[in-house]
Amino acid sequence: MHIDLNADLGESFSAWRMGDDDAMLNIVTSANVACGFHAGDPVVMRRTVATAAERGVTIGAHVSYPDRAGFGRRFLDIAPAELTADVLYQLGALDGMCRIAGTTVRYLKPHGALYTAMSHHEDQAGAVLDAVAVFNPELPVVGLPGSVLLRLASERGIGTIAEAFADRAYRPDGTLLARSQPGSVLHDPDLIAARMLHLVVDGKVESACGSPVPVEADTLCVHSDTPNTIAIARRVHEVLTGAGVRVESFR
Amino acid sequence: MHIDLNADLGESFSAWRMGDDDAMLNIVTSANVACGFHAGDPVVMRRTVATAAERGVTIGAHVSYPDRAGFGRRFLDIAPAELTADVLYQLGALDGMCRIAGTTVRYLKPHGALYTAMSHHEDQAGAVLDAVAVFNPELPVVGLPGSVLLRLASERGIGTIAEAFADRAYRPDGTLLARSQPGSVLHDPDLIAARMLHLVVDGKVESACGSPVPVEADTLCVHSDTPNTIAIARRVHEVLTGAGVRVESFR
Amino acid sequence: MHIDLNADLGESFSAWRMGDDDAMLNIVTSANVACGFHAGDPVVMRRTVATAAERGVTIGAHVSYPDRAGFGRRFLDIAPAELTADVLYQLGALDGMCRIAGTTVRYLKPHGALYTAMSHHEDQAGAVLDAVAVFNPELPVVGLPGSVLLRLASERGIGTIAEAFADRAYRPDGTLLARSQPGSVLHDPDLIAARMLHLVVDGKVESACGSPVPVEADTLCVHSDTPNTIAIARRVHEVLTGAGVRVESFR
Amino acid sequence: MHIDLNADLGESFSAWRMGDDDAMLNIVTSANVACGFHAGDPVVMRRTVATAAERGVTIGAHVSYPDRAGFGRRFLDIAPAELTADVLYQLGALDGMCRIAGTTVRYLKPHGALYTAMSHHEDQAGAVLDAVAVFNPELPVVGLPGSVLLRLASERGIGTIAEAFADRAYRPDGTLLARSQPGSVLHDPDLIAARMLHLVVDGKVESACGSPVPVEADTLCVHSDTPNTIAIARRVHEVLTGAGVRVESFR
Repeated sequence: MHIDLNADLGESFSAWRMGDDDAMLNIVTSANVACGFHAGDPVVMRRTVATAAERGVTIGAHVSYPDRAGFGRRFLDIAPAELTADVLYQLGALDGMCRIAGTTVRYLKPHGALYTAMSHHEDQAGAVLDAVAVFNPELPVVGLPGSVLLRLASERGIGTIAEAFADRAYRPDGTLLARSQPGSVLHDPDLIAARMLHLVVDGKVESACGSPVPVEADTLCVHSDTPNTIAIARRVHEVLTGAGVRVESFR
Repeated sequence: MHIDLNADLGESFSAWRMGDDDAMLNIVTSANVACGFHAGDPVVMRRTVATAAERGVTIGAHVSYPDRAGFGRRFLDIAPAELTADVLYQLGALDGMCRIAGTTVRYLKPHGALYTAMSHHEDQAGAVLDAVAVFNPELPVVGLPGSVLLRLASERGIGTIAEAFADRAYRPDGTLLARSQPGSVLHDPDLIAARMLHLVVDGKVESACGSPVPVEADTLCVHSDTPNTIAIARRVHEVLTGAGVRVESFR
Repeated sequence: MHIDLNADLGESFSAWRMGDDDAMLNIVTSANVACGFHAGDPVVMRRTVATAAERGVTIGAHVSYPDRAGFGRRFLDIAPAELTADVLYQLGALDGMCRIAGTTVRYLKPHGALYTAMSHHEDQAGAVLDAVAVFNPELPVVGLPGSVLLRLASERGIGTIAEAFADRAYRPDGTLLARSQPGSVLHDPDLIAARMLHLVVDGKVESACGSPVPVEADTLCVHSDTPNTIAIARRVHEVLTGAGVRVESFR
Repeated sequence: MHIDLNADLGESFSAWRMGDDDAMLNIVTSANVACGFHAGDPVVMRRTVATAAERGVTIGAHVSYPDRAGFGRRFLDIAPAELTADVLYQLGALDGMCRIAGTTVRYLKPHGALYTAMSHHEDQAGAVLDAVAVFNPELPVVGLPGSVLLRLASERGIGTIAEAFADRAYRPDGTLLARSQPGSVLHDPDLIAARMLHLVVDGKVESACGSPVPVEADTLCVHSDTPNTIAIARRVHEVLTGAGVRVESFR
């Protein structure tokens, strides 16, 4: 048994710090690195990529709508050709940073509102995949099981990586409980770690209603903006490895 | 005898148009493509690169300070490490666009105030070359003969391309007459073409004072923001080729 | 009989020019001035406002989503409180420029995709009006007759200015024919001027199907991005004044 | 005896937090509020201004070069007319936020590299004062004693506010010890408070060499990016008021 652990990294910008990238890069096996459209800047990208490469952490492009003022969390009704070009630009910029660190971009994960749109927005999901197809069709995409993104990727022969969220509650149908709902975000490292072990071993999590719900997962996301995120990530890693699960990149 | 002809291209942005890239890409042999920091955006970059690649025009990264509001024309006292990262980001982004068009970035030319700083600013010239050295040390840099950039590049074994300006007047010492001076920018296509032929054949131009001045040039820049720039570029190309000079990329 | 004539102005940015503001400011009676979020910059705003003030042209704030890369033409799902703050920022910045020119912002007109959203998006229309209510409740808002914006403004006691589009075809129900439809944008100055006279005198335009359709209008918009826009604006002004219609600001 | 206490506030941006504005606004008497060019955004500005106004803290415009990517800390060789327009835009935007909170912008303080340039750069200092002169000539400017900004302001009849830095070491000539020097930034709240009391009462601080140096000060700046800044500001306030100094706005 094995699983990947991913987190959003490189989200500092200019004089603003966000997250503890150094600590997180000692725990996760995949780093979703911001490409300058919602967060990150060239200095931050270079440093984040160098540290990730040094520690053998797989690097993915955390691509976003061009919306730093909204941290990429607001849906933008962007035309497919523009979105494809925006994704290509971000992929190229990050890949350049990777190559000088002796590695390459190994996967793509949409960020924020773009990630959410990937569940249902056929045109935008297609546009993201158009970028992958011309940039490097070997690049898998990370998304929610059941999302339009993963379905279209499969149809086009692009690799898919199903993602589960360590610190989020699930509804009985396997979708995430909306952030606006009470109890939607979990905070207890032990509880979260136990849930993730259950998920990896049995393919199930307990839903917010108490029923077991099957969830497919190639990678587990630990949010980096949760207050005790480092403690959560560390505990998840410990409990999984303690139970004999190999925590390693999906590659 | 042979010479390269270059122009700044891909300088449109969002809903704003600048220059006639399509016409210019039928004339020049090298395209300095904006990378989104002073001009250009992902859609413009993708289209410009595709057209240039189709027509066999060599593509260079026209890198800039991060200053779209000033079109990269204002000196920015940026720290070397930040400048290196900014250049790397631009190189990577443009190179990604090139690779999907079946080509690569083949040279680097600083834009605007950064170009000017390259004449004398050791730290910033070194920072630009640091980016080249780690990104691709085979990449030559375009600059003024006698500039710090070309001198440092030579010392580090990085290729240099000496540039002359088709539409600018020279002082007797071989430097450019400042734009603020009367007569500093030339407009007559025939005159300009004759001067460029003289430069290519004899290695000299007539200075603003009437004296012949030796000018070294591997490439001739035709500014794309001069009103009749297309006519100038076309005439220069005609006169040179008519005289048996091969107009071709420096590669 | 009287009518206002408005156009989008101050849409140049940095080194990029857009439209012929100087010519247009000799024709229109109201100037929708970009506030730096989709177009314009402080230098352009200052110059546009100074010229408009000099010529007695009424100045309105042409407020936008924060999306210069998309020229404000892409819907952004921004939270109401953020939109209100964005509108306040733009109103304040433009009003500062107006006050140093001896005038003030006299109305607000949403731009681009925000204008479109005002037809139906209750939350965003409410957010724009929240900004008006706290900034200056005497400020009228320009919008489509029948839009949510004008309805909510009326309910809140905020002034409304119904807008018709000189160069657009109308459907029999009084809404605009979508830009994607053939014939949706009109180009013939004489035809446009005749239609506008009919509209002002009789309150009707001929729809794309040939039937007369009642259209309410306090102001007529002449788009500044139509190629022969100056000719259109001039002809509309001539024909209206020639028929005894006073072309004057709605104030 | 009385003195003003100021701090840089409203420097959060988008999803990034900086400083503890709420705590600081309980201590200082003047708030230098970022205007969106180096930090801050419309939501942050609106909230910061509202809190400051509620608590009777005087609001000043903390204007900057347009350089969010560099947090306004890099010198930009901007033309005077552009700088004047940039300052006007920021003043207007902040003043709009102030007016809806029942107050107005009461002073101007240049930020970061622009502040530094004000010591010696005649053209840029003149450009900042040009903005003040047309926006509101009653607005005083905050600067270093001996700076070009304060000298030119005096010559033009614009009010001046001499600033001292609570947490910085001074050289024997009354200028600041450069940040690159060891000991240039002070961290001990008790030491800092004692120095400030000495400054207010005797008009002197002990220089880095041990000699007393006369320093003129109408306001004391407590940096908000020092780690224990809240503790420092609180201690300075306590020690000053404990010694009978009124800590109040310079207005």
